[in-house]
This record gives sequence, structure tokens and C-alpha cells, in this order.
Amino acid sequence: MAVQQPAWKLPERKTEEPVLKVYNSLTRTKTEFVPTNGRLVKWYNCGPTVYDASHMGHARNYVTQDVLRRIMTDYFGYDVHFVMNITDIDDKIIIRARQNHLLEQFKKQQKTLTPELLDITLSSWTSYIQSKVAKGLPENERPAPGNEQDAWPKLVSLFQGEDKSWKAECLKRDEKFEMHFSAASKAYNAIQRSREALQSGQTGEEVAHALVDESRDILALTLDKEQGSTVTDPSISRSLAAYWEGQFFNDMRRLRVRDPDTLTRVTEYVPEIVSFVEGIVKNGYGYVVEGSVYFDTWAFDKAENHDYAKLEPWSKGNRELLEEGEGALSVTTGRRSAADFALWKASKPGEPSWPSPWGPGRPGWHIECSVMASAVFGDNMDIHSGGSDLAFPHHDNEMAQSEAYHDCSSWVNYFLHTGHLHIEGLKMSKSLKNFITIDEILQKYSARQLRLAFLTQFWNAKIDFSESLMTGEVRNIEASFNNFFTTVKALVSQAQAEGPRLESTHRFGDLEKDLTAKFHEGQAAFRVALCDSFNTPDALNVLRDLVSRTNVYINSRGANLEISVVERVARWIGQMLRMFGLGEGESSEVGWGQDVSGEANVNREEILMPYLRTLSSFRDGVRKVAIAKGDTALKDILALCDKLRDADLVPLGVALDDQEDGKALVKLVPPAELVRARDEKRAQEQEKAARKAAQVEAERQKKLKKLEKGRTPPQEMFRPPHVPAGTYSSWNEDGVPLTDGEGKELSKNKAKNVKKEWDLQKKLHDEFVAWQAEQQQA
Amino acid sequence: MAVQQPAWKLPERKTEEPVLKVYNSLTRTKTEFVPTNGRLVKWYNCGPTVYDASHMGHARNYVTQDVLRRIMTDYFGYDVHFVMNITDIDDKIIIRARQNHLLEQFKKQQKTLTPELLDITLSSWTSYIQSKVAKGLPENERPAPGNEQDAWPKLVSLFQGEDKSWKAECLKRDEKFEMHFSAASKAYNAIQRSREALQSGQTGEEVAHALVDESRDILALTLDKEQGSTVTDPSISRSLAAYWEGQFFNDMRRLRVRDPDTLTRVTEYVPEIVSFVEGIVKNGYGYVVEGSVYFDTWAFDKAENHDYAKLEPWSKGNRELLEEGEGALSVTTGRRSAADFALWKASKPGEPSWPSPWGPGRPGWHIECSVMASAVFGDNMDIHSGGSDLAFPHHDNEMAQSEAYHDCSSWVNYFLHTGHLHIEGLKMSKSLKNFITIDEILQKYSARQLRLAFLTQFWNAKIDFSESLMTGEVRNIEASFNNFFTTVKALVSQAQAEGPRLESTHRFGDLEKDLTAKFHEGQAAFRVALCDSFNTPDALNVLRDLVSRTNVYINSRGANLEISVVERVARWIGQMLRMFGLGEGESSEVGWGQDVSGEANVNREEILMPYLRTLSSFRDGVRKVAIAKGDTALKDILALCDKLRDADLVPLGVALDDQEDGKALVKLVPPAELVRARDEKRAQEQEKAARKAAQVEAERQKKLKKLEKGRTPPQEMFRPPHVPAGTYSSWNEDGVPLTDGEGKELSKNKAKNVKKEWDLQKKLHDEFVAWQAEQQQA
Repeated sequence: MAVQQPAWKLPERKTEEPVLKVYNSLTRTKTEFVPTNGRLVKWYNCGPTVYDASHMGHARNYVTQDVLRRIMTDYFGYDVHFVMNITDIDDKIIIRARQNHLLEQFKKQQKTLTPELLDITLSSWTSYIQSKVAKGLPENERPAPGNEQDAWPKLVSLFQGEDKSWKAECLKRDEKFEMHFSAASKAYNAIQRSREALQSGQTGEEVAHALVDESRDILALTLDKEQGSTVTDPSISRSLAAYWEGQFFNDMRRLRVRDPDTLTRVTEYVPEIVSFVEGIVKNGYGYVVEGSVYFDTWAFDKAENHDYAKLEPWSKGNRELLEEGEGALSVTTGRRSAADFALWKASKPGEPSWPSPWGPGRPGWHIECSVMASAVFGDNMDIHSGGSDLAFPHHDNEMAQSEAYHDCSSWVNYFLHTGHLHIEGLKMSKSLKNFITIDEILQKYSARQLRLAFLTQFWNAKIDFSESLMTGEVRNIEASFNNFFTTVKALVSQAQAEGPRLESTHRFGDLEKDLTAKFHEGQAAFRVALCDSFNTPDALNVLRDLVSRTNVYINSRGANLEISVVERVARWIGQMLRMFGLGEGESSEVGWGQDVSGEANVNREEILMPYLRTLSSFRDGVRKVAIAKGDTALKDILALCDKLRDADLVPLGVALDDQEDGKALVKLVPPAELVRARDEKRAQEQEKAARKAAQVEAERQKKLKKLEKGRTPPQEMFRPPHVPAGTYSSWNEDGVPLTDGEGKELSKNKAKNVKKEWDLQKKLHDEFVAWQAEQQQA
Repeated sequence: MAVQQPAWKLPERKTEEPVLKVYNSLTRTKTEFVPTNGRLVKWYNCGPTVYDASHMGHARNYVTQDVLRRIMTDYFGYDVHFVMNITDIDDKIIIRARQNHLLEQFKKQQKTLTPELLDITLSSWTSYIQSKVAKGLPENERPAPGNEQDAWPKLVSLFQGEDKSWKAECLKRDEKFEMHFSAASKAYNAIQRSREALQSGQTGEEVAHALVDESRDILALTLDKEQGSTVTDPSISRSLAAYWEGQFFNDMRRLRVRDPDTLTRVTEYVPEIVSFVEGIVKNGYGYVVEGSVYFDTWAFDKAENHDYAKLEPWSKGNRELLEEGEGALSVTTGRRSAADFALWKASKPGEPSWPSPWGPGRPGWHIECSVMASAVFGDNMDIHSGGSDLAFPHHDNEMAQSEAYHDCSSWVNYFLHTGHLHIEGLKMSKSLKNFITIDEILQKYSARQLRLAFLTQFWNAKIDFSESLMTGEVRNIEASFNNFFTTVKALVSQAQAEGPRLESTHRFGDLEKDLTAKFHEGQAAFRVALCDSFNTPDALNVLRDLVSRTNVYINSRGANLEISVVERVARWIGQMLRMFGLGEGESSEVGWGQDVSGEANVNREEILMPYLRTLSSFRDGVRKVAIAKGDTALKDILALCDKLRDADLVPLGVALDDQEDGKALVKLVPPAELVRARDEKRAQEQEKAARKAAQVEAERQKKLKKLEKGRTPPQEMFRPPHVPAGTYSSWNEDGVPLTDGEGKELSKNKAKNVKKEWDLQKKLHDEFVAWQAEQQQA
């Protein structure tokens, strides 16, 4: 072709795309994010140690990680490989599992309440007072050994007393004081009850088990001390861990936290850990002491290509942090330096163990993550994340180990640490009674509300979770989005119902251009915010601002608005909220889903309603027949109809409101709301029934009282013992007195009165006799 | 803090991210895509001219654009503003609307079949033969004026004859010959029938309307020619356009093509068009001729900063293409050059018009898009797209106009042209009888299958849509994804049912590492393919290859597979397929959807089953009570139970299989399947019932016949009329014959026989009498 196209020039960028920067704990600054392999992001996140229910601290950490992960994958389009571990070998797990196991065994053995059981419990209790409770008490109030029981009542009255300062002082001495005191108190009461039961001969299994259960915390300590070393089966720890792992993921899913792509468990990586420790020793950074292996921090730190404690070099000597990292069952004698930490711990009896070149033992805490992350990613990863409390020593030790093993200088490129969570300004702790489990918080707030609360804060800052945050800001934000979507949906459905318009006035005027421009600015600002180290508070504000601007537009245009402009803004805002994990608009199911053309908008309600209407009208029909026939045999069917409404459908969130015309109205309602309404109704009914029963009983008592008056036959009413002996001296055949005690004839007036009384009693007595006959017949 | 963190280095990229390049019609090469404003992409797509049903050509074009748009937004994460127009001012629309309008008016006037109506139809028919049919016929077979009716039967026999070459020759002369001949044939037959009807006095409105309907195409031409100029109301065109616009979007939604963000209609932009044309004239690139305004291509092309026909400079002189662009109602006299085209057309009577400085008129075709795109985007956009047949003259003229108006040198940065569609190797056309509407094709294939077919081809290449493509490659691809997802879903649900495993063997070994590495390579290759000008065939192959590799892994690991590795691959593949618009996994609803914690994976079945199980067990309970009581009053309730199962739940796709234990099994089944099964069952039952009824009737008839024999009392059976008169001449008191007709005593043998017959009849008669009494009682 001879004719050529004119030259074309690459367009100029008027506005550059923003670059993603992340707050990197390795520099404590925001650094540009550069993944090593194209768009692939290797990301390791420290998972939970599983031995108890997950709490708000977990929620904060894992929801925040999930938000960052969603932004990276769903917004920035990275191909993220998200790996998380489960720590299922840990001193806390070992102790908890061992105690549970010993306690269950012990309980099973107690078939009756015996003096021996009482003795064991009592001596456990006195040890507990001395070892746990005493340290919180003022010196002069600590009971002398042997005197614990006598001293107890006074302590209880101090504890419960009006002078709050006494307890406050105890808590200052020991932050767990309240917890210990409560446990001791519960056990003390159980011991007293059991002693009485034993005296009165009530020695059944139930009584024995009640004592064990009430003294649980106290007995567990004694049993563990005495028999802990006999517990050797590692499956005892693993099954406790497996249970809490299951609970953890249930909680996470309820919070809409995505499962990790790859999950690693310490128990599954022990052979790899042994090899890894061998490698560290071989490279000269580990040494063996009596079956344990320690990391040589000094040797590592002085090596040319290594730095120890990159994250918190200033914490290097922090003994408290180091010891906490080593665990409650640690033996640390023989280390070259107090900064050295265990790679491999020789197991004492009662601690699960695996074979190793250094004898039976188990991995140290920090080595676990080094090995599992290396097993999946090798000698480098893009991102490592975890709670900020893990930075030192855990993450610093983890990096040191891995760099010692791989002989590399940077195992982790970006370290992201999520901030702490406080409750109403205070650190959350069981002893402060502000400890909230995920299950508890989800009964109060929805996952969306919790996630919104976290989104309003920087991911790496401390968050203060408070009632006022939730009922103020969060509910406001949620309501404003809800109102906005409701309005837009209504406008869209109205426009759809009207179809393509016929009149020829275009509606992309200045207001529409302005809103569109604002929308594009908003999209850019949103991106800038997320590029600025995932600044979700700013990003959320951009969305809220767009909602306001769009509402202003809607109000100013009225009926002449251009719906496509509004719909576009609303759709995008919804997408971004879903991107943050605030809703279920996107499906994460395997496969490509339903192939139903033109049904993009089906939601739960639309799916369910035709079925529920069918169910309801079937029930209507059944009720109608049953009521019309009036047969007593049909009562059972009506009872089934009521049960369906009041019991079966309630937890499913379906309300059937029976109407006068016999047709029930079907509603989909949040189950919790429905349960509450049903329970309230039940309570009201019960109260009403109780009132009615009380009234009936009062009537019966009244009647009985009246009847009781008639028990005495009139013939006997003026004779002893119904009147004092000597009141009268002679009577006629009906027992009506004729003379008084002194033989004097009754005065006319008196005679009239006794006759009147006699007649009345005759009537009452006849009634009594009739009632008695009635009773005998019945 | 005195202690400092060690230095940190920005990570090195081992693999660079690929850069998006697109095939740009302005260079006919793949050029890097650089958006002008950050991540915002301004995109204008040429929409349809709405005057008829959308067809496969539309499907190819708009589905392909939709795929590109989804890749840009959902995969690359651009903030796309997608604008599309509706051409609702166009010569084709004007003619169609005018003809429809005139024909409807004409039809309404025909209350009876009159000789006048027949005359009008006949003369329309003869004109049609001469103007439309004749040009396809061999010269020597073209009927002389006035001779059309006589010539017709012979032409029909040639048309239908065995010699296919005759018709082929005609089609060569005129590609629309078959269409014209069929229309003429239909009208001819209607005229014959009407003539007979008129003769036999059948002149009702129905007969008259039948003639008009059958001669529709032919009458429309005549009416338009005679009265077209009287049709002046622009709403006549607009309402036709509005109707087909609605149909177009219905079709698009069924194909899962997303609505444009902004929709512009020509009728809504006429004032803007007038101003725009004025601007072009003012800038010296337009001139006025008798109320029309033309673009001065020569002036534009010679201007320093402008080039005319950037897309196809070699087509500049192509008269055929140019004239097609001008439309059937165009008047082109007075133009300075044959290359010049109308910006504004003076309207003739019968053509809708709008006021303008040049007198009443309407916009030219090309100006529409220039104005509407400029109204939304201003003097520059990132992407302009459309079908490849629009490149010249439409898009070249559009660019020339806009660059003339804005006085800029590049109005469009990237021009994307989607390829053509052929059907079984041939261009699709109504006359070739391979014309397929979207509605027709969706009855044969699903939207997913059609989209898959397009995805297997380059977006900018010609596609040959064929039966073998659909039933071969496409079905294979679909089946292999389906099988894969089914397998993975089953494995995932199995693993979930098992819960956290207790045994401590890790399952992220070499095979898992290998599959994970392959997966990451696949993700990278997928990105490379899409960056290579949206290479969907390659991208699809990457997904298919991953399916194969994962299947190999699944088979090699057996029960010991690590489900998370498999699930991760499957989940991503599903996401990418949904990204291509192949399924409904993502929700496009306004808002953030349901707030149901922990139910990320809900699908229809998971939502419904708890409710259906409740419904079913309620029904079980009701049935149990009803059956146990055995009361006839409860029959009504059992009937309701049956109705629920057989009538109410069937269209909802719920099968209740009543089991022997009284508990029904609940299944969700496609409703169509269930309806078919129910209907089959009903038909079988009806057949059985019919057979049984027939048998009962036959028995009854047999019995009646037998009873009927006994109607005659034995006393009368040997007397007339039961025997011919003169058979016997005397009888005993029981009516047993004694002598024959001639008075002769009966032979002993004969007497014995008649006695036997008598006894038999006695028995039959007794039965008859008893039955009769019974009948009377009943």
C-alpha cells in the first residue's frame, strides 16, 4: 500500500499514576513497594497460637491483614500468595492440654464424694492461696500457712467491701489478683458445700463432680504439678490445638476474613525444623547445651553480612521481652548470652517431644516461622506481617535465623506490623474484665460494623475500640451508605420501569459534568489514599464525600436527574466497599457460578421469597382445614403450624405474621431480631399466665378459708373446745345454749344472737359438707 | 533513640511487570497504552442504529467490546468511563418508521375488503415486480408492463424448479433477489385469495386485514412514495427507535454485556450538533449548500496541523463507501468534492427536521458521534472503539470533524476496531438466509458459550462462527472447566467435612511446590497474554493448561492431596473466567449487598436448603398426624400435601420424594426437568386410569348384555314376539310349548331342549329382576 497513515505520537501523561508506598517496619518510613517477581507477591503472615477462644485483639489483627490483602489483590491486582501458620506446638498449649487431660481423668475417677477428694481439693486450695492469691494481698493480711480457711471470710468481706481502694491496691500488686481471688472464692464455697453434703450423707457422683468442676482452676495446678510429667502423648496437645484452630477459622469466616492460600502447622514441619537448626549450627550461628540448641546472637550480629534485631535494635538487651518469647516451660541455663534464644528445646517429662540429633525435644517458637516460611518461599519474600507486639523478639529472631540459615542479608523485603487494640482506653486483659471474644462481639455488632471500625483507623496505629466509636461514627457511616444505596436503588428501579425515554432533552448538562468530574477526582483520590500506605481512613472519607456530593446532585435535579451518572457513582462506591470486605457482593466460590443471563442482581431475598410464599400458603391451607373441621384430632396439626412459626422458622429469620383472613404475611428479618421478639413475646405470655395462675390460686385460698369456717357443725359450735369450757352450762338438742356458765338463763338478746350465729354456721356447715362430698367424689 | 536500624535497600526486580500494549488502528501496530490522566480511561464506543432486531454481528461487536472493557476495569484496574451512543436519527430509521406509520394508518381504514383495496394492492404489486423483482430476472424473462400477473406462474415454477442454476444466476444479478421474490410471491397468493373471497362475498375486516398484512412490504413502498412527505412528526421516528433501543439492551443484558456508563442519544443532542457545525464552518472547514452543510475535506487535509482519513488514507476516494455513509435519503448535489460529506442535511418533506441557521434539517451521521463524544470528553479521549466496517468513512470523518472543531491534532489516542463475523464462512445477510438474531442464537447456545466462542479468537480478527466451532471447541472448553470445578468443589467440601486434620504430616511437598510454581507462571503468562493487546485465545489456553496440570496433580496425589493448593488454582481460574464475563459470580448490584457473616460461599442451593428442609419436615409432620388419625376429614389435608409436592413446588424446582418412613427427601432440580418428570408421571397415570376405566366399562357392558338376556320372562320366551308367530301352537301354564306350529306334539328330544332353555332363562330372568330391584332402590 503506497498511501501511509500519518505519524502517531505516544500520548503524554498529564497526571502520573500514583505509586504504592507502604509503611515498612524495617525502615519505619513509607517506602515504595517493589515486588521481586513481576506482579507476584510472596506474603507470610504470623498466625495464631491455638489454645483458647479468639478475642478482639485477634479480630483487629486478622481483619486488618485481610483488608491489606484485599487491597493488594482486588484493588491493585497483585497476584498474592498469602501464607499463614498455625502455632500448634507451644508451652501454653502444652500446659493447657496437659491440665485439661489430667483434670478429665481425675474427674472420671471420682465416682462418689469422699473425704479424700475433699482433702485433695482443700490442700490444693491452700496452696493456691499461698502461691497465687497471697501475692496480691497486703503483707499483713497474708494468711499464715494453715490459717487460710480461718482468714478467708475476712478477706472476702474486704474484697466485696465498700472501700474500693483495697481491691485497687491488690490489683496494683498483681494484675491477675481479681481472677485468682474469684477462682479461690468459687472453690472455697464449693468446699464448704461439699463438707456439709458429706456430713448429711449426700455423696453421689453428681456432688463429687460439682466439687471438681467448681475447683477446676485450682485442682488443675496441683494435678499438673504432681502428674504433669506422666502425660507424654503428643496427640493430647494436637487435639486441643485442632479444636481451637477450627474455632479460630470459624470466627475468621464470620468476620469475613479470607482463608490463607497456604496454611502451615508446626506439628507438620518438625523434620524440616530439625534440618534447619542443623543448618544454622553448621553455619556457626547455633550451639548445643544439654539437648537444647541456642542461637548465637553475638556471633550473628558481628558477622559482616548480618545484623541482629533489624526491626528493634534498641530492644536487643530487653530481658523481659526475651524471656516472654522463650515460654513458661523454658530452661535457659547454659546459654552463652541472655540474648540467645532456643532453636530447639530438650523436652522434660510431660512435654511432647520429637526425635532429633540432640535428643528428644521440640522446636523453639521463633524457628517455627523461619522454617515454614522458608519451606514455601525459600530465601526471600516480599512481605511479612504480624501484630506489632511480635516485632521483637519474635520477628527479629525469625529474620536472624533465616538469614543465618540461607546465608542471605535480607530475607524479608517489607515488614508490616498491625497496631494494637485497646478497649475504652485500656489494654484488653482477662483480669481487667474487658476481655471480649469474637463470638461475644459478633452478638453485638455485625462483621461489617467491626470492619468499618477498623477501616476508620490506620492499619498500623493503635485503635481504641469503644462503645462511642461503634454507636457514633461507625453507625453514622453505615447509615449514610445504607440510605444512599436505598435511594439510588429506588431511583434506578423507577427509571428501569419507565424504559427508554421518548422526550429529546439530553441530561448530561453542567451538573452532570460536574458530578462526573468530581467522581473521577474521587476515584483518583481514593487511589492516592490507598497508595499512601493503605490509608483507609482517607479512602473511606473519599467515598463518604462522594455520597454527599451525589446526594446534593440528586436533590438539586429532582425528577430531571440523569440516573446513569448517579448509578455509576453508587456502583463504584459499592464495589470499593465490597473490595474492603464489607459485603458479599462478590462471590469467592469455586467455579464461575450461575449461568443465568440477565439475573445479575439476584439477592438472598429474591431467591428465597417464592419458596417461602409457597411454604406459607401451604400452611395457610392446612390451618384453614384444621380450623374449619374443629376436630380435636386436628389440634395436633394446629400445634405443628404454631411450632413452624415460633420455633422452626425463627432461627432462619423468617417471620410469619398470621392475619385475620387466615393468610400469614411472610417477612425476612435478621434472625437475632426475630429471636428477641419471640423471647419477649414468650416472656410476656409467661408473665400473664403467672399472674392469672396467682389470681386463681388466691380465689381458691379465699374459698377454702370460707369453707373452713363451716367445718364445725352448728350443734358443736357452742360447746368446748369451740368455746372455752364453762362458757355455757346447758344446751337444747341442736346445741343452742340455754344457760350461761353459771347456770343462768341467757338474756333474750343474747339468746337471739346465739340463734343467729347458729343459723349462719348451719349454712356454712351445709356448704362445707357439700364441698367435702364433692371432693370425695372427685 | 541512639540505636539506629540498619540500612534498607529497595528490592531489585528480577522479573519486570509486563506493559499493556494495544493494537491501535491509528498505527496498525501494537502500541503501549498510556492513559492521559492517571488511571482514568475515557472511552467512546460507537453504538447501534436502532431500527430492527440485533443480530450476531452486533453480538460479536458488543460482546467483544465488553470483554475489552472488563479486562481494562476488572483485571488492569483502570477507572474506565465508557460512553456509548444510540443513533436514533438516521435515514433507515426514518424510512422504516414512516412506512410502518403509513401502513398502520392504511390498515385501520380498511374496514371491509373492497375492489378498491384489491386494485391498490395489485398495482403496488406490479410496480414492485418492475422495480424490485425484475432486476434479478434474465432480460428475456422480465415481464412486460401489464403482463406481470400472466408471467408470474412460470416465474414461480422456475424459482422452485430443479435447475438451481436459474436462481443462482438471479442472485448474482441482485443479491436481494430471493427476498424480493418471496415478498412478491406471498402478496400474489394473497391477491388471488382475496379476489376469490370478494367474488364469494366474504368481505369482512379480517379478510381485508389479511390482504394488507400479506402484502405489507409491497404496500409500504407505494404508500411511502405517495404519502411519505405527509409524515412530519419526529416522534414517529423516535418511538420506533425507542422500541428497538429497549430490545437492543435486553439482548445485550442477556449476553451479559454491561450497560455503558453514559448513554447519549442523537435526538437529545441536536442543539449541540448545530453549534458544533457552526464551529466547523467558522473554522473554515464547512460550507453551506441549499440548507445543507458539508465538510470541506480538501481544506482540512491541506491544513498544516490536520490529516484527513488518518485510519484509512487509502480509502479517501472510495465512492461506494462514501455514498453508503451518506444514507438513502441524501441529496448530494452542490458539494465541492465527491469526498465531502454532510454535516447537516436539509430535510425534505416527510423527513423529521430541527431548526437551524440553515433552515429545517437534521444532522449527518458522522457529526453525531463527534458532538456527543466531545460533549462528554471534550477535545481528547483515550480510546475510541467500534466495528471495523466503521473505520472509513465514519471514524475518519468523525475525527476530521472533531479536530476541525477543537482545532486539535489528535482527538482520539487509541482506535480499537473489532473484527467482522462470518457465518459458516460467508458474510451474514438476510438475503443469504444465514441471518441470525441474538434472540435466535440464545435459544441454541448460552451467553457463556457465545462469549467463549468469541474469546477463543482475537478481538480484532474476523471470526467464523460455525456449528463446528460451537459444538466442537467451545463445548470442549466448557466441559473441561465444568468437570474441573465439579471435581474441586467435591474435594473441597470433603475436606471441609473432615475439619482440621490431626495427623502431623505436612503436605506441601515437591508436587505441591511444583504445582504452585506452575500456577504462578500461569498467572504471569495470563498477564503477559492480556498485555499483548488483549490476547484472549492465549489467556484462555493458559487457564486450560492450568486445569490440565491441576488434574494431573489431583490424580497423582489421590487421597493425600493438599486441597488448599488445588482450591487456590481453581478459585483463581474461576475469577478470571468471571472477569471475562462468563458467569455471575460477581454482583453488579448497587450497594454492598448482604451482610451475612461467614457466608462468603453461599450459592442458591446453600441459601435455599435450610428453608426447604424446614418446609419438608413441617409437611412430614402434618402428613404423619393426618395419616395416623385416619379420619376422612383429614383427606383434605393429605390432598394439600400432594398439591404442594405435585403442583406448587414443581415450577420452583423443588422435588419432594416421599419415602416409606414418612420423611420426604428434598432435592433441587431444574424446574424444566421436574415439570417434564411430573407431566410424564401424570400422563402415565392418566393412561393407566384410562385403561382401567375402559376395562371397568367393558365389564359393565358384558354384565349388562348378560342381564339383558334375562329381561324376557321364561313364561313369554316361546311366545311371539320372542319367537316367530306360528312356531308353536299351545303351551302349559309356565309357557313351555307343548305343540309345534302345526299342532303336532313336540318330540321328546325337542321337549327336553325347550325345558332346558326355559330353566336357563328362568335363572337369567331371576337375576335380571333382582338387578332391576337393586337399581330401583339405588
